[in-house]
Amino acid sequence: MLQVAQRAGVSRSTASFVLTGRHQDMRISEDARQRVLRAAQELDYRPNLMARSLRTKVTKTIALVSDTIAADPYAGRAIHGSLAAAIAHGHLLFIGETDGDPVVEQRLIADFLDRQVDAFIYASMFTQYVRLPRQLRERPVVLLNCLIRGARPLHHSIIPDELTAGLTAARTLLEAGHRQGIYVVGHADKGVFASRERMTGIQEELGTAGVRLAGVVDCNWWPDSAYDAVRQALVDGLAPKALICVNDRVALGAYQALREGGLAIPDDVSVISFDDSELAAWLRPQLTSIALPHYELGWRAVETLLGPSAEPGITRLAMPIRRRHSVAKPTVE
Amino acid sequence: MLQVAQRAGVSRSTASFVLTGRHQDMRISEDARQRVLRAAQELDYRPNLMARSLRTKVTKTIALVSDTIAADPYAGRAIHGSLAAAIAHGHLLFIGETDGDPVVEQRLIADFLDRQVDAFIYASMFTQYVRLPRQLRERPVVLLNCLIRGARPLHHSIIPDELTAGLTAARTLLEAGHRQGIYVVGHADKGVFASRERMTGIQEELGTAGVRLAGVVDCNWWPDSAYDAVRQALVDGLAPKALICVNDRVALGAYQALREGGLAIPDDVSVISFDDSELAAWLRPQLTSIALPHYELGWRAVETLLGPSAEPGITRLAMPIRRRHSVAKPTVE
Repeated sequence: MLQVAQRAGVSRSTASFVLTGRHQDMRISEDARQRVLRAAQELDYRPNLMARSLRTKVTKTIALVSDTIAADPYAGRAIHGSLAAAIAHGHLLFIGETDGDPVVEQRLIADFLDRQVDAFIYASMFTQYVRLPRQLRERPVVLLNCLIRGARPLHHSIIPDELTAGLTAARTLLEAGHRQGIYVVGHADKGVFASRERMTGIQEELGTAGVRLAGVVDCNWWPDSAYDAVRQALVDGLAPKALICVNDRVALGAYQALREGGLAIPDDVSVISFDDSELAAWLRPQLTSIALPHYELGWRAVETLLGPSAEPGITRLAMPIRRRHSVAKPTVE
Repeated sequence: MLQVAQRAGVSRSTASFVLTGRHQDMRISEDARQRVLRAAQELDYRPNLMARSLRTKVTKTIALVSDTIAADPYAGRAIHGSLAAAIAHGHLLFIGETDGDPVVEQRLIADFLDRQVDAFIYASMFTQYVRLPRQLRERPVVLLNCLIRGARPLHHSIIPDELTAGLTAARTLLEAGHRQGIYVVGHADKGVFASRERMTGIQEELGTAGVRLAGVVDCNWWPDSAYDAVRQALVDGLAPKALICVNDRVALGAYQALREGGLAIPDDVSVISFDDSELAAWLRPQLTSIALPHYELGWRAVETLLGPSAEPGITRLAMPIRRRHSVAKPTVE
């Protein structure tokens, strides 16, 4: 700083005021300001952010603490969105994973606090209720893809609007003319937040139209399980007209089982799904799917953390439908 | 620290020695050590790492600077591996993306340097030659999935062993009994590092066995392009016995085109691929694929950065083959 001041021919405080953006308060001439900036550039002056942050307590870093988000190829986009928003706000992003282990989590958060990160994103791979770690309760934190039980939220949560997604799935089939033989393929576990919300949306929309869900083909979230379950159901005499798959991987398994069963998509059976992963566009016919907006979830979480403060609450991000070629009007027998 | 010392009934230096792990050098009694540790815990004492790092110049943070690695669902595993290794070494991980823009890159690295990160991982999504940014040349840095031209490397590079992967692909088909009708499906651009190395490996292994590659079905790295190219080739009279696909997505497109052409995998046509992404196990029949070890690349890069120092050089990580059900012996016509 002294070298900059000497080169610019100003006092050390003048140089300091200019380089910390306080030249207007201090009535420093434009000419002096320009000389300081030029000198700083010529000397490749870099303020010691660590030393400064000891005084200001601001490091312009945030930490994203997640369970296993980086391990999931699709949810990794949430990191990408968070990163983009952090950079846009002039912040850098630490990431850390806990594998859902509270001891690891506590240690990791302590390590971040030692490095005096300004704020936290607390993220989950699947939308779910969580308990916020005690260390984070009094700090700036936004929850990404998770939320805290309780009537009055103390923190922001950014989650996908799964309920509306369920409505959309059902409405899409109704609009195509489906009124019977509509099955959900996937995990029927009411304990899973996304399943529960989507199912509520599906039931609600079908109910309003006076249509009954024909049933659930139970399987887990992976193609093999869906393939086995749909194949067995077809062998057992199931004659579906439309399948609502809980994600694109399940839809892939359903596609394989339907094809083996000699059923054409969408002529014999319509298929609609959730996620809109890359897979949806790769399947043949291309799969109509309701997008999980991972990137936007990450972006919005950081925006909420670093943007103008607002009343804490739950923000549900729209899950837009990507219409492709797997839904058609039912054939009349 | 003073409060901890008072509560433990020891001098300030004793407390300091205990909490910085120097109690053995300083012959401090076990009893005093226990009292200090208990007091520190009761007072929730946390050393100010930022202040300490101003003295020691060590922040125990590393930064992973990449082009677009977090955007790619598969390469995101490299981040996961890096993160795991960083944590294992007691370091925290910053991530940053440049989108391949040198100006963004320069700014980002400057921001990391302002926060005094100890070391860098310089990463690329595709294996390629890069120029190391000037700011990093004198610093601890390991290149992840990229390398620098030149006879004597000044930095470590961790890359996948694509050449051996090419050999493996060809050998697998030869061992199954294939000697003709072997085609490569994918981008024949010699400018792409992985393509070039694999192709060299394939040609070398086939050549040794006196077998000639029948040709290349040219397409880009995506399913649609591969589907179109293989479909057109079949229409034009191509009668392949085995396809070597440049990645699993290309294999997906090839599967679709072969099926449409009435060709069974592996009875009529064997298919082998590279990547071993999740897709490989989801396809039917399950796809034999040679794994791109993203997680290991990330892990090894950080290990090399933080582990015992060694002579700089290029480390090629093995690409293990995952044998599934898409390769069989050729049918005799």
